[in-house]
This record gives sequence, C-alpha cells and structure tokens, in this order.
Amino acid sequence: MNYLKQAKSFSKTATEWDKLVRKFICYETQADKEKLFFYMQQILFGLQEFLHDHVGVTEAIDLKKLALSYTDTRISDIPQKKLTEVISEIIDEIAPHAVNVSSPYFVGHMTAAIPSFMVILKALVAALNQNVVKLETSKVVSVIERQLAAKVHRLIYDLDEKFYNDNVQSVDTTLGCFTEGGTAANMTALWVARNTALGPKDGFDGVEKEGLFSAYKAYDIERAVVLVSQRGHYSLTKAGGILGIGNSNIVRVASDCDGTVLINDLKEKIDTFTRDRKTKILAVVGVAGTTETGHIDPLCEMADICRKNNIHFHVDAAWGGPTLTSEKYAKLLKGIELADSVTIDGHKQFYMPMTCGMVFFKDPKHMDAVAYYAKYIIRKGSVDLGIKSISGSKEANSLILHGAFELLGKRGYGMLIDHGIELAMEFAEEIRKRENFQLVTSPKLNILTYRYCPTRIKQDLLSRTGRERAEIQEKLNEININIQRIQRERGKSFVSRTALKRKEDSEEIVVLRAVLMNPLTNIDILKEVLDEQEEIFEKHCKSMI
Amino acid sequence: MNYLKQAKSFSKTATEWDKLVRKFICYETQADKEKLFFYMQQILFGLQEFLHDHVGVTEAIDLKKLALSYTDTRISDIPQKKLTEVISEIIDEIAPHAVNVSSPYFVGHMTAAIPSFMVILKALVAALNQNVVKLETSKVVSVIERQLAAKVHRLIYDLDEKFYNDNVQSVDTTLGCFTEGGTAANMTALWVARNTALGPKDGFDGVEKEGLFSAYKAYDIERAVVLVSQRGHYSLTKAGGILGIGNSNIVRVASDCDGTVLINDLKEKIDTFTRDRKTKILAVVGVAGTTETGHIDPLCEMADICRKNNIHFHVDAAWGGPTLTSEKYAKLLKGIELADSVTIDGHKQFYMPMTCGMVFFKDPKHMDAVAYYAKYIIRKGSVDLGIKSISGSKEANSLILHGAFELLGKRGYGMLIDHGIELAMEFAEEIRKRENFQLVTSPKLNILTYRYCPTRIKQDLLSRTGRERAEIQEKLNEININIQRIQRERGKSFVSRTALKRKEDSEEIVVLRAVLMNPLTNIDILKEVLDEQEEIFEKHCKSMI
Repeated sequence: MNYLKQAKSFSKTATEWDKLVRKFICYETQADKEKLFFYMQQILFGLQEFLHDHVGVTEAIDLKKLALSYTDTRISDIPQKKLTEVISEIIDEIAPHAVNVSSPYFVGHMTAAIPSFMVILKALVAALNQNVVKLETSKVVSVIERQLAAKVHRLIYDLDEKFYNDNVQSVDTTLGCFTEGGTAANMTALWVARNTALGPKDGFDGVEKEGLFSAYKAYDIERAVVLVSQRGHYSLTKAGGILGIGNSNIVRVASDCDGTVLINDLKEKIDTFTRDRKTKILAVVGVAGTTETGHIDPLCEMADICRKNNIHFHVDAAWGGPTLTSEKYAKLLKGIELADSVTIDGHKQFYMPMTCGMVFFKDPKHMDAVAYYAKYIIRKGSVDLGIKSISGSKEANSLILHGAFELLGKRGYGMLIDHGIELAMEFAEEIRKRENFQLVTSPKLNILTYRYCPTRIKQDLLSRTGRERAEIQEKLNEININIQRIQRERGKSFVSRTALKRKEDSEEIVVLRAVLMNPLTNIDILKEVLDEQEEIFEKHCKSMI
Repeated sequence: MNYLKQAKSFSKTATEWDKLVRKFICYETQADKEKLFFYMQQILFGLQEFLHDHVGVTEAIDLKKLALSYTDTRISDIPQKKLTEVISEIIDEIAPHAVNVSSPYFVGHMTAAIPSFMVILKALVAALNQNVVKLETSKVVSVIERQLAAKVHRLIYDLDEKFYNDNVQSVDTTLGCFTEGGTAANMTALWVARNTALGPKDGFDGVEKEGLFSAYKAYDIERAVVLVSQRGHYSLTKAGGILGIGNSNIVRVASDCDGTVLINDLKEKIDTFTRDRKTKILAVVGVAGTTETGHIDPLCEMADICRKNNIHFHVDAAWGGPTLTSEKYAKLLKGIELADSVTIDGHKQFYMPMTCGMVFFKDPKHMDAVAYYAKYIIRKGSVDLGIKSISGSKEANSLILHGAFELLGKRGYGMLIDHGIELAMEFAEEIRKRENFQLVTSPKLNILTYRYCPTRIKQDLLSRTGRERAEIQEKLNEININIQRIQRERGKSFVSRTALKRKEDSEEIVVLRAVLMNPLTNIDILKEVLDEQEEIFEKHCKSMI
C-alpha cells in the first residue's frame, strides 16, 4: 500500500499536512537520505570509533557555561530543523558535551560501554514499539518476556525441569517482572514483602487495600522495618519512604571493613525487633555487589537467619547478579538461590542500553500480592504482563536480552564477568605496588576503592592518633577530591569518588572508585590512570601537604 | 585508536576472547555487514512499509500454540546465532506474531504509529547510552532535559519570562521530571502531595522519614484520601496502594454520562471528608483525557474547589496533555494551568517510542518533598536529576523529545491533534448515520465508544424495562464481545472493547472503543472497520438474537 498516497486523501490544508505526513513516514529527499545513512552507518556499525571521535570523557567546558546554551523555554511554533540537521546537531553539538561512558578510560561508574549490537536491537524494539503492559499491544513479545524471566529465574534458582515447564507460560503464576531499573525492582520486592507480611486476615482486607495505618492496627504493631547493610543502595531507603514504611525504618546493619554485613549485628537487631511485639520485620536485604565497593553479603548465613525467623529475604544483585553466568565466579553468590526475591539490572552487567531492571520471586505465586486489574486491559486470567507490575506501559526490553543471550551465550557473559574480576585483581596488585597509593577495599567482584596517599603520610597515619590523625585524613580527603576533579576535567580518564568509614578511622575517608566492566579496559590503561593521578598530585596538590 | 588491536593485548585464551570483543564492537564480515545493512535500511528509512509487510494487526495464531514455542528456560551455554541471524529471527519469526500497532487500521489502543525519525533518535540515545540520574554520566544531556521540562511546563502553565529564566537551569528548583511512564508520573505527583500534606512539624520528621502510621498519629487522623473520577486511570488506585494510603482510599467521584466528574458529588465528598476531622484529603485528581472515553473533567471548577479547600490539585493529562499544542483545541484543557501538578505521557500523543512519562509542578520547590541524596552520586546542590525522582538510572528520553520538537514544531504536533479530534467527529457522524450502530460516548478529544445494536433491538430497548431490558443488554454485550474478538482474529482491523455504566442502564454495557491518533488513519479506513463489523454480525452473530 502506498501510505503517502493514502494520506493525501485527507481534506486538510493539503501541502502542510502532506509535508507532515512525509516527515512522519520518513520520505526524505535522496540527498538527505544519503546523509542520514552516513550517520546511521557510523552509529550502527562503528559505534566504538564513533564515540571515540565524538564524545569526550567528561571534558572541561564549564557546566554553567553549557547550561546557558539551553535556556530556550519555548517550543518553537514551526519546525526548526530537518532530520539530517537534528541528527547532526546531536552528533556535532550535543555528543561532544555528553559523557563517553563507553571509553575504556571511563572506569568510574556502573554505566559503561555496551556492545554495538545492543543499539541495533534497541532500534528494532523501538520500530516494533510494542507495549508489553498487555497482550493486545504485544502478543508474542509478552510470551518471549515470560520465557526470558524464566531463563534468568533458572540462572538464579536452578529449580527442577518440571517447575519451569509448569510455570514458564502459565497465566496463573509469575516468575519475575521487567522493571524500569533496579530501583523499581527493589521497590517491587519490598512492595510484595510488605503486602505479604500485612496481608488480609479476619476483618482486615490487607495493607494494599486499606493502607498502612489500618494494617498496623489490624496487626497490633506500631512500626515495620526492613534490615539492610550500611552499604545497601539508597533506592532501598527511598522505597521505604515511598511505600509508607518511612525511610528511617530501613534500618542499617553494621558492616565490616570489607563492606559486608556483620552477622552478629543482624542477629541482635532481629532479636531486638522480634522481642518488641509492636515492631514487625518486613524483610532483610542482602547485597550482592554493593554500589560503592562491589562486596557481597554473607548470603547463606543471612538466608538461614531469615528462614528461622520467617522473614522475607531479598537479595539486591542489581550489580552482581550476572556473575552467575561465570563458571569460575558464580560461587561468589552462593546463597542467592535461597532468597525469596532477587533484583538484577539488565543495563549493568548484562550490558543492555538504559534502562532495564528485573525482579524475580522464588515462589511463583508471591507476586499475587500486588496484582491489579482493569476492564479495558490487564483482565483476570490473561497473559497481560501489566497485572503484576509497578509500571503501566512497558518497553519490550526483554527482546533485547533475548537477542543478547542468543548472541553471547552464557559463556560470553561469563567471559565478560571473568575479565572484570581478574582485571580488578590485577589493578589492586598494581595499586599495592605503588608506594603513593593505598588500596582501601580490595575487589571481591570488579569494583575497588583506593586513594592517593604519599608514603610519608602513610607513616604519619600509623604513628599519630586523635585530632592529629584526623587532620591528616582531612588533608588526604582534599587531595583526593582534587585529583579526581582535575583528572575528570582533563577529560582523558575518569574514576569516581565516594566516602567510606573504616573501623580504624573515626571519620569517613574520601576514596577513589574504579568499576571495571568494559572489555576494552586493560591493565595498561589502568596504569595510565594511576600515572596521571601521580602527575596531577605532583603538579597541583603537592603544596597541600 | 584500533580498539580490536588493543583488546588483543589481553592475556585471555586469545581466540575466544578476540571473537567476543569483535562481537562487542561489531566487526562483522563484509557479507554479514551488507545483510545487516539491508535490514536496518528497511527499518530506519521505510518503517511503515516494513511494518506493513512484516507485522500482522493481531493475527489469528492461537496464543497457546505460540506460547509453546517459547518454553526453553535455559540460557544457552554457547552463542546460538550470529547478529544477522538474531535480526532475521526478530524480523521473520517474531515480528509476524507481534502486533502492528502502527497500522492505520489499528485504532483500539493508545499505542499507535510513531514517526520513523523516532526510531533513529532512539538508536542515537541508545548509542550515547547516557544515564541522566547524574551529571557524571550525562553532562549536557541533563541540562537539555531541564530545558525540555521547562518547555513543557511553559506549554502547560505559561508563566512569565522571568520565571522560566530563573528556573530553567537552576540547581535549586525543579519544574518537572521525566519518568518511566504515566503511572510513575501520577505516583510521583501523589508522592509529593502526600509528603507535603503530611510534612515535618513539631516533634515529627515528616511522613517520608517516619512513615504513615506515625504521620497519622502526628496529624491526629486515621485516614488519608485522594478523590478522582470513576473514569480515572487504574494507576491512581495502584499508586494509592503503593504509597501506603490504601487503594480503597482513592475515592471515586461519580461521573455523568459523558464520563466527566460530577462537581456536586465532588463538593459533597470534600465536605463530608472535611467535616470528619480524622480524615485528610491529600489530593483531588482531574482527568484530561480519560483512558476509556477521552473525556475531560471540568478542570476550572475543580481547581477552584481545591484552591478554596487548600487541596493539592493534580491533573492526569497523560493522554490529553499534548492537545495544548493545538491552537484550535487547546482551550478544551482550560484550567490545567491551575493545577499543582500535571502528568503527560511522551509515548502517547507526543508520539515517542515506548516509554516516556513526565510530571510537572507549578511550584518549582514542590518536589523538594521527595529529594534523596547519596554520597557517590546525586550530591546536594548538583544538577543530578536523580535527586527528585522515583527512578534511579534513567534513559535520556528527553533528547528524543528535544529532536521531535525541533522537527515538528508546536504546529506539527497541533496538526496531529487536530487530525485526531476531527477524524473522531467524522467517525461519530458516520456511526450515528448507520442504523445498526449506536454511539455510546461522543468524542471530546479523539476517543469514542460505540456498539453494534441492530435497529430492531434499539426499539426494544426503548420499550422494555427491568429484567427484560437487562436480558437484551446482555445479548448485545455478547454480540459486541464476539464482533470485537472475531475482527481482531481476522487480523485486518482492531478496535478495543471496555465496559461502561450509563445513567439509563442498571448494569455496565460492553462497548467498542476507537482511539484515533494515527495520521494515516482516515474516514475511509474507519468505514471499512464498520463494514467488516456489520459483515461479522451477519455471518457469525445474527443467530444470537
């Protein structure tokens, strides 16, 4: 069918409408088409080179100056640009001031290079524009999403064949849910835990329907808490706020120097809360890959405690989850299979484009606690994936993961994981070797923290105490803040910074943080990063001590 | 820099790692590249034809049969396919069983055709893979997102130049927030309203920190409610559940036949709740474009009532918001500028790919009620967009809308809106003309509902009452369910169905629903849709009466 011809049959002011419809269906002139083609070719088939040529790591231009260029607050009445111009604006003006998260020298955050094929898959998903909230706007894609959920569920829980055969395409059960990201995934898990712990009982219709105030009265409590390590992600605190529990009731359990939860403190807290009949523990959260240090909580012990106390055990494996694809390192996550629910991010170590979160439940009926129905969609007994989900309309992200699994296999992902972990070990070794650096947290997965700390000061730190020691730390903090900032602004490399509290210090110390997930990053690049930091210290910070 | 060469310097088992890195950076063979190119060319430069050739509307294959093809719950150990094979699987096997939401004959849902350029923009956004949760992974893109928020804020509120100059790039204020979709946008608005109504006061740190139970005690209430029309979206109910208010406290206000809220009932309910000192009204929600009928609540009157009673007034304009771009029909939304907060969906009538929601606040300090900080990101006083947001990691959707505004201008969007509304009027006229159809709700925007109702039965309905009348309605319901189902399964056209309660009926009646947003849909197509429905009735349903 000739859509353009058909569109012409409209009675609108013909020329303008025709032009609009042409734009809608992308009938460009031949010259424009060739130009567009040239751009898209670069992006789809030479992504790494494209980004390398066009995007700085964070580059020096001052944000305030940059902000001044974007203060036009009126939507232009008439079109301002042709498609080729819009694309070249993004490529030539915007991209150079964006952040090249794809550079092998960008090792500061959990956002990094994605495989080129991900961009192609994302474009396909956009072209099909399915909405997996319901079958009527997605059909087979909803069925594929269920299969994907089963695949990752199996990676985590590895239950028997019959379990997966029974549940993979059953409309009555749900193995997991794709979400916007890890935050929504964690929130979904706590939502389910809240609704299960405060579910319907005699004369009470459940917390989802009646609200928390009535729930607390029905259960004769005054407080509900969630226990999580000090190093747990801030999204858990935020989820506590949103879910009405109160974010101060996301109680932080002490962690040791390595950043993992102290089992004794967890036990004590559970005991104290259990003795207080007015408090209910909704969930305990274990972290598999803390954001700041990449450490993993003692999942087996935590699961055991939760089982004995009948508490929902959630594992936030937003970062670490894909480690399960590695034959060598999957064992680091031992105990995750005991969790009632697990968060994994697709846009982190499954290398998907922004954004994709997932949450899985061991019990395929668990998500019934958050089911919603509507008349026009998400009808009872249907496959509609919007029934048990925070989201309404949903992108068909699962199709991207479907393709990625076919392309890389478990083994491919496993190799990426191995590379990150082993490179982190190598990097830690290198930091230990350099006398002016100090490794603060050694890598368990592929994240480590360290700081610049000249030899002389290292010795001072050993001998001084009290206020003197605190003053030295304060100086080191300033130095590290400066090194990180200057390196970022030079625009070649990027590590991030955060603050950690160690047992031996009275205050938090500023640390540099490296996240090693880009397969193009290697030890030579990391040595360059350290070299530059030494050079920055010599040039800009030496006078500070 | 030759990334492949560089990658080779790794000490991994060379061949396999090389292969993986090649896959990552997309070094395909020349033959594969050409094949891939051919596919991508179709998608990027001939999207409508591509979808027309490859995707059915919903087509007949049984879902249960389809589900049987997707029951492999193991992630394959080794790669199963090359990229060209993955793409051709999606195009040749998956797409034919997906839903062609882009067809001009697909007029049943709010998911429809998107302009081809959206796919190109989405691919670009994926290629840059910025994470706008924080500046360090997005830089200029965060600044552009702020500009976009200001543009849409201005479209809604049209405050003075100074206001926008002061706020567009201020790190201290927030005009709006991009969210996953309308559900998250509505939830954000109610989250802000909840936290504002139950904010900190003497001896109480606020609901976000202490939770709802403490908040109700501090404010000496036992219930908090939100008032919304019967026709309000189910996401509002769900938000009530998630936010801990209890979904039964999302109180439904009666609506008239046209589907808009009855002001008298709203006033009565507000009076009743206000008199009850143990109840607090958190917000009133007006709907600008109800999901089922596209109707608009009397926003001015509702705003006036809220102002007098000091209640947060939220407008859910997820659907109708972009009507503000139409010179002719913007007036239909009169009163939206009086709202404290407004939801608009990008993936609906801004024609963006799945998914993009937005929420705006008149008061640029209002979102302070939901601010969160963390040490490694979203630091105080920064531009980091993750500070006030349900989401953590966020896709740079704003860049797509940025491009779309440049390409179409306000006028282009306005023309799309005009087309939808005027086509709906034409369609309503056509339905009225046909004796075997009955228009149930006339279009205010571009949505209408109707049903098949043979002349003879129309007369019966007028003369019969009570059980007899109910029986006729029941039969009509069955007929319409069948017509919709058979038409959907034939795979040429698609209207959706829902159930509505009219004043004159004791029960809900089943209606067919048309959503007219595709610029390629025209009255001739809609006549074909009705013709087919008549034919289906004659062939399959006549015996039912």
